[in-house]
Amino acid sequence: MIKPIGDRVVIKVVEREEKTASGLFLPDTAKEKPQEGEVVAVGTGKVVGNAIVALDVNAGDRIIFSKYAGTEVKYDGVEYLILRESDILAIVEK
Amino acid sequence: MIKPIGDRVVIKVVEREEKTASGLFLPDTAKEKPQEGEVVAVGTGKVVGNAIVALDVNAGDRIIFSKYAGTEVKYDGVEYLILRESDILAIVEK
Amino acid sequence: MIKPIGDRVVIKVVEREEKTASGLFLPDTAKEKPQEGEVVAVGTGKVVGNAIVALDVNAGDRIIFSKYAGTEVKYDGVEYLILRESDILAIVEK
Amino acid sequence: MIKPIGDRVVIKVVEREEKTASGLFLPDTAKEKPQEGEVVAVGTGKVVGNAIVALDVNAGDRIIFSKYAGTEVKYDGVEYLILRESDILAIVEK
Amino acid sequence: MIKPIGDRVVIKVVEREEKTASGLFLPDTAKEKPQEGEVVAVGTGKVVGNAIVALDVNAGDRIIFSKYAGTEVKYDGVEYLILRESDILAIVEK
Amino acid sequence: MIKPIGDRVVIKVVEREEKTASGLFLPDTAKEKPQEGEVVAVGTGKVVGNAIVALDVNAGDRIIFSKYAGTEVKYDGVEYLILRESDILAIVEK
Amino acid sequence: MIKPIGDRVVIKVVEREEKTASGLFLPDTAKEKPQEGEVVAVGTGKVVGNAIVALDVNAGDRIIFSKYAGTEVKYDGVEYLILRESDILAIVEK
Repeated sequence: MIKPIGDRVVIKVVEREEKTASGLFLPDTAKEKPQEGEVVAVGTGKVVGNAIVALDVNAGDRIIFSKYAGTEVKYDGVEYLILRESDILAIVEK
Repeated sequence: MIKPIGDRVVIKVVEREEKTASGLFLPDTAKEKPQEGEVVAVGTGKVVGNAIVALDVNAGDRIIFSKYAGTEVKYDGVEYLILRESDILAIVEK
Repeated sequence: MIKPIGDRVVIKVVEREEKTASGLFLPDTAKEKPQEGEVVAVGTGKVVGNAIVALDVNAGDRIIFSKYAGTEVKYDGVEYLILRESDILAIVEK
Repeated sequence: MIKPIGDRVVIKVVEREEKTASGLFLPDTAKEKPQEGEVVAVGTGKVVGNAIVALDVNAGDRIIFSKYAGTEVKYDGVEYLILRESDILAIVEK
Repeated sequence: MIKPIGDRVVIKVVEREEKTASGLFLPDTAKEKPQEGEVVAVGTGKVVGNAIVALDVNAGDRIIFSKYAGTEVKYDGVEYLILRESDILAIVEK
Repeated sequence: MIKPIGDRVVIKVVEREEKTASGLFLPDTAKEKPQEGEVVAVGTGKVVGNAIVALDVNAGDRIIFSKYAGTEVKYDGVEYLILRESDILAIVEK
Repeated sequence: MIKPIGDRVVIKVVEREEKTASGLFLPDTAKEKPQEGEVVAVGTGKVVGNAIVALDVNAGDRIIFSKYAGTEVKYDGVEYLILRESDILAIVEK
């Protein structure tokens, strides 16, 4: 598997269904459109002052992240994205 | 629900009534026009030196924020904005 | 009322009388012209190393601030400006 | 041998096989294409607050790194790349 | 009086006599020409790590400062300049 | 002798033999070509958090450094280069 | 005298003799040409983490500094240069 370093996470991008009950998702063009993903693996932690602390996301979390963030990698025929935790905006709870 | 990460908050934008008792709101064009919102969810906290401390806003707070800040997301047909706490200028107390 | 966040303050701008005993105020054009205001409300404090400490200004203080700083807001028909404490240059003592 | 300083690592670049079971690796052109390498030597550590702590990678690790990072060196007829640990995205575990 | 905030100082600019015993002051054009002033009031201190410490200048000090630094203010018909302590290069001792 | 300040080191540049057993050194043009040198003197140390700690290189070390780093000085007819330790990539061990 | 603030030093520039036993000093044009000076006065110290520590240079030291650094001042008919300690590369020991 791919084990991210430090404050990085490996995710699989989730294609969102554009049509919801209230219609199409049409974001204001002046603002950045985010994307959804599922966390596959998390790094050992981030620096907070003098310590390294665990990340706020865990494997299995469904997340929203900044669209242009991260680096694409392919492993065993599957595409992943490696992000820094700071590129993750929120966890979508089920 | 959407659970923001770290120092982020999820808000719903509130359209302000432009007309007040004293007339139209006409801000000086050389300055940024802020917007109002209601806090829906807050992150786990922000870094202060060596510690992570709770945010200064809570769910339910009516806030003023910088107009061009944040990322729009749609969840269950409702539009939200994900901001960093530092994009929040003030709490409007009722 | 409007309660500023963190190191921010809410002020009311004070129009200065341009004519003084010694004549018109004519600042050197190569330097920034400041403005006066009165502090209406102050945030919970600013970060100093590992701690959050109280601001150096209080409600009621007459201050001088950088002219282009801050964000204008209107509340109950009155215009205010939300500044960071670092945009405040000095307190004018009576 | 080449002994990197501080938070640096010496790696040998690994040419990836472009063809996998699922076909060619074709990354989205808007995102950076990473590269693989094998760690040959690691520095004495990185600064975390007031301390210097060991790196998260070790000699022998297979890693993914940002494509344009690092400095090429040749030693005893072999080409190496010297990177900072922060240019390493993840460890590929066998 | 004007009471500066934090690491700021209020000074009165002193016009230097250009002609000295050794002739005119003709600085190398590639370097910045400094100015002299007298400190009128000092702020409560500057941040050093986790603490706020007193400034290195006091009211009454004759100082040299960077020419384009500071903000001009007029108070009771007198012109002052508000600087950050870091814009002060040296104290001229009598 | 020349005694470098803080995190600086004084080196003598070593001209590398371009031809090795495996042929000419031809680095990828998109990457920076490093240079070799020998450490002649080291500064008193670098800042790590609240402390000043000894450098990772010592007089006599053979090092690889970033090509365009440093300042040339001539002393007693010999040319030296003064670098910051952070411009040193690695020590070449004999 | 001129007493520099904080991490600053006052120096007198020393014109170097361009011709040495090995001939003219002809630095590589891609690198910055440094200058020599003698330290006349030093500031109270520099910030290292939470403390202010003494500078690494003392009055009387012969130093090498970055050519374009500093601010020229004239005092009692003598020209000086005020530098930050970080602009000093090395001490030339006699």
